[in-house]
Amino acid sequence: MASNQQVKLFIIVGSPFVARAEIALKLKGVEYECLHESLSNKSDLLLKYNPVHKKVPVLLHNDKPVCESLVIVEYVDEAWTGYPILPSDPYHRAQARFWSKFIDDKVLPAVIKAAWNPNEKEREQGAEEAREALKILENELKEKFFNGDSVGLVDIAALFIAFWLPLIQEAGGLDLYSGEKYPKLEKWGHEILNHPVVKGVLPPRDHLLAFFKTRFQSISA
Amino acid sequence: MASNQQVKLFIIVGSPFVARAEIALKLKGVEYECLHESLSNKSDLLLKYNPVHKKVPVLLHNDKPVCESLVIVEYVDEAWTGYPILPSDPYHRAQARFWSKFIDDKVLPAVIKAAWNPNEKEREQGAEEAREALKILENELKEKFFNGDSVGLVDIAALFIAFWLPLIQEAGGLDLYSGEKYPKLEKWGHEILNHPVVKGVLPPRDHLLAFFKTRFQSISA
Repeated sequence: MASNQQVKLFIIVGSPFVARAEIALKLKGVEYECLHESLSNKSDLLLKYNPVHKKVPVLLHNDKPVCESLVIVEYVDEAWTGYPILPSDPYHRAQARFWSKFIDDKVLPAVIKAAWNPNEKEREQGAEEAREALKILENELKEKFFNGDSVGLVDIAALFIAFWLPLIQEAGGLDLYSGEKYPKLEKWGHEILNHPVVKGVLPPRDHLLAFFKTRFQSISA
Repeated sequence: MASNQQVKLFIIVGSPFVARAEIALKLKGVEYECLHESLSNKSDLLLKYNPVHKKVPVLLHNDKPVCESLVIVEYVDEAWTGYPILPSDPYHRAQARFWSKFIDDKVLPAVIKAAWNPNEKEREQGAEEAREALKILENELKEKFFNGDSVGLVDIAALFIAFWLPLIQEAGGLDLYSGEKYPKLEKWGHEILNHPVVKGVLPPRDHLLAFFKTRFQSISA
């Protein structure tokens, strides 16, 4: 990193969206400083830099804020040279954008609905939607990673499925995802969780499991 | 367009999402053939090329499909030279992606909820969310267009507000948007609706108004 570059990242430990930004920065070899936020007490600085969504991650590059995790990943890919996170070919770039959008528009909301919707019927419908969306993603996996041989935008977007989803399932006693039903996603999950850069940003598993258990208990109480 | 390029677009007349793709293609001067679909009877070809969402627009470039309107707009910007739809600077590109995502994640769902949610309280909440999101967008407008002096990604994404939203309001008797409350958006709307390329792709106003009126009637009946 050039000495005149100042890179800061507003984070909350355990956030899958923060992990996306961190993986992008680390793949590029960008050094950055973490500014720790808490869900219950957001700093004035975070609210200043992300007044619209008031959420982490926010990337601060020479005092200019970039918000929204996938926007940050694309920004990091374009602002720094080195490791290519998106493919160079326009068609493959469009496919990467399509699938990362699919994960955020279809997979994530379905899992959240399945886990935490107050209405039982809605939760069941969410579970069905999650299984369908995961099946579509399973069928899309053709190689080691979504992007081919190396970790790219879609892998970064989908990491939630390999790490957070199994913990949510375990904490809430849900049945959305299993290695038997999604063998290609399972194999991919193993690869990505053992990728050295990804490994380096994953939050402690036990802490996160305890957090999700508390979250389920507070709802059922 | 080079003679070896084959560009087709699956469309439904009246769709704001199709309009996005058409504006991008026309700004670049790309010639394309329209393949007309109908909401009630989607062709096998559409289902083949967009099996995930089964929706228009689908861009077919030399038989390769690109789906999702904003993904198409970015693809067109990268696959053809000429008119720049996204800025060249990475930071400004990130801002354009942030705001176009804001329109699709916040403005559009709020308007749909305000207009067509079966629950009256939800409709009222949607109206409030729509007004707030429009106010945020109003405050973001600093120049003639979102991108400066020329039509760009955010203007293309936001066109819905200038053309479709007033028709939905009129058809459903809603009060979400008015020129007095959003003077900068109103001025921007006048500019973009009179842009020669945009003008050329807008569907007939009266047909669309009749369509929305029928839609409101069928719900209240």
